[in-house]
Amino acid sequence: MTTDAHAPSTALPLRVAVEPHPDRHLVAAVQRVGGSVVPLAQAQVLVWVGGPDGFPALPDGVEWVALSTAGIENFVAAGTVDDSRLWTNASGFYARGVAEHALALLLAGTRQVVRSARTRWAKDAVDPAVRSLRGSTVAIIGAGGIGRELTPMLIACGASVLAVNRSGRPVGGADVTMAAERTREAFSRSDHVVLAAPDTPETRHLINDHTLGLLQPHSWIVNVARGPLVDHDALHRALVAGTIGGAALDVTDPEPLPRDHPLFDLKNVVITPHVANPAGRLTEEMAPYLTENLRRFMAEREMLSVVHAGRGY
Amino acid sequence: MTTDAHAPSTALPLRVAVEPHPDRHLVAAVQRVGGSVVPLAQAQVLVWVGGPDGFPALPDGVEWVALSTAGIENFVAAGTVDDSRLWTNASGFYARGVAEHALALLLAGTRQVVRSARTRWAKDAVDPAVRSLRGSTVAIIGAGGIGRELTPMLIACGASVLAVNRSGRPVGGADVTMAAERTREAFSRSDHVVLAAPDTPETRHLINDHTLGLLQPHSWIVNVARGPLVDHDALHRALVAGTIGGAALDVTDPEPLPRDHPLFDLKNVVITPHVANPAGRLTEEMAPYLTENLRRFMAEREMLSVVHAGRGY
Repeated sequence: MTTDAHAPSTALPLRVAVEPHPDRHLVAAVQRVGGSVVPLAQAQVLVWVGGPDGFPALPDGVEWVALSTAGIENFVAAGTVDDSRLWTNASGFYARGVAEHALALLLAGTRQVVRSARTRWAKDAVDPAVRSLRGSTVAIIGAGGIGRELTPMLIACGASVLAVNRSGRPVGGADVTMAAERTREAFSRSDHVVLAAPDTPETRHLINDHTLGLLQPHSWIVNVARGPLVDHDALHRALVAGTIGGAALDVTDPEPLPRDHPLFDLKNVVITPHVANPAGRLTEEMAPYLTENLRRFMAEREMLSVVHAGRGY
Repeated sequence: MTTDAHAPSTALPLRVAVEPHPDRHLVAAVQRVGGSVVPLAQAQVLVWVGGPDGFPALPDGVEWVALSTAGIENFVAAGTVDDSRLWTNASGFYARGVAEHALALLLAGTRQVVRSARTRWAKDAVDPAVRSLRGSTVAIIGAGGIGRELTPMLIACGASVLAVNRSGRPVGGADVTMAAERTREAFSRSDHVVLAAPDTPETRHLINDHTLGLLQPHSWIVNVARGPLVDHDALHRALVAGTIGGAALDVTDPEPLPRDHPLFDLKNVVITPHVANPAGRLTEEMAPYLTENLRRFMAEREMLSVVHAGRGY
């Protein structure tokens, strides 16, 4: 990161490959900072839009790889992320939209919107089941970028927010922030749980028979993180038993969820097909962050969303 | 309202009938202000939980009737509301819950939650249709109590709020407030429309072929007010033609909507069975407001939600 290409004013244009396709929003971001879009062989920077399939062998000249996804567990599993250069992901770039989707799922569940849509004016069944977020406590597990965006939305609905993150460092606006080792306490103090944590060995099957048992018969679980955070068999048991109120999932394990999966048959389940961050708008959402990171790269300043391969995110 | 029963400190207990059933939340509200729950024949105040059916002939001693519904068009149509005493409704008492339901409906529509729930992981169809409230403009038609509560929720989601009310008096937090005569301009400047106006001759069929034509192919209409505000035939035409994005209705015309109504068959329609203010929680929500109004009645202060029979709300 200290080659002459980084020197200001008199520098040659930054050489950036946008692969596997020259997406117009990202090409515009490169041009906005005076950079040139070049083939990978000549590039200092690779902007990669997609998953690990088809990821190219990297020439030595590539100093920085900018991935377009927030979760990078598939790249880590594939051994793509190396120590020879800088890697960034898109963690946080899509946080506000994902937070909005989490709110949509939570409200669709608690206010019985989806259950209503599956019936036809079944007022006697629906009316007693409607719950308000006002006065409720919502735990956000893995309160990073999504949690920071979701918190004011929940507060505006009159809910209290109990944020849980790795460090326990207070999340602005949250009523309480707890470190991850107190996750179970957070469950037992909450009405509803929103999962927004990365998929790591520590978070896998965070929702299991035990933690489900800490929730209440009216509790909804919302997952906008990654499917493997939830033991889907345990979830199905709790939903059938009525131990919890319902589950609203934008991510599942596996994905896509097979059409004959038993979760699809339950009336207290809401499933959206991994669209909290719609693929069709991804590069448009990413572009301003890429611009910012390109500026920081050229100025040798601390960059956004640097990947820590060892932590898996 | 100037009988000796209103004199402070030395007054006899206020005599209140809670009919047709002595609901415990409302009885507690009466007792909280030192009042006595009495049969109607002896009452100064009638608290009436229900609609116009079964509404009793009022003894002359009844100085104030406290109705439990926000919309009172049925009482007005039945000729129940007279000029011989004070009448209040529950306008505004349930506003926050109704606002939350409006947000739930809007998000369930725009983020394709209900459409997702009707299919099974139809990602290719759902993904391109997902919209964010962020950066959108939402018109609230009839921005009174519900509008005041809904506005900060929408702002927290990154939307701009265009409030429309009778007077045009600015609604706190809204980006723009317009008087009712500019409703059509409001439609043409908005992405989505939330109906929260009372059912009056002026608002009947406010949503019609003409106003629907002012909206956009991605626009959602949310109705948490009263069914007759919408011309349901015109709405069906617009939904089938794709002139608008969708409709999310908690109220319909008629109610209940017949099970074979064609709106139930459309994929871009979300219908909940008039549960924005769930009947099962109504008196619990009303109780603190009744307490406040009983105090104001005893103190001869201006009361909450006085009915203007001539205006119909």
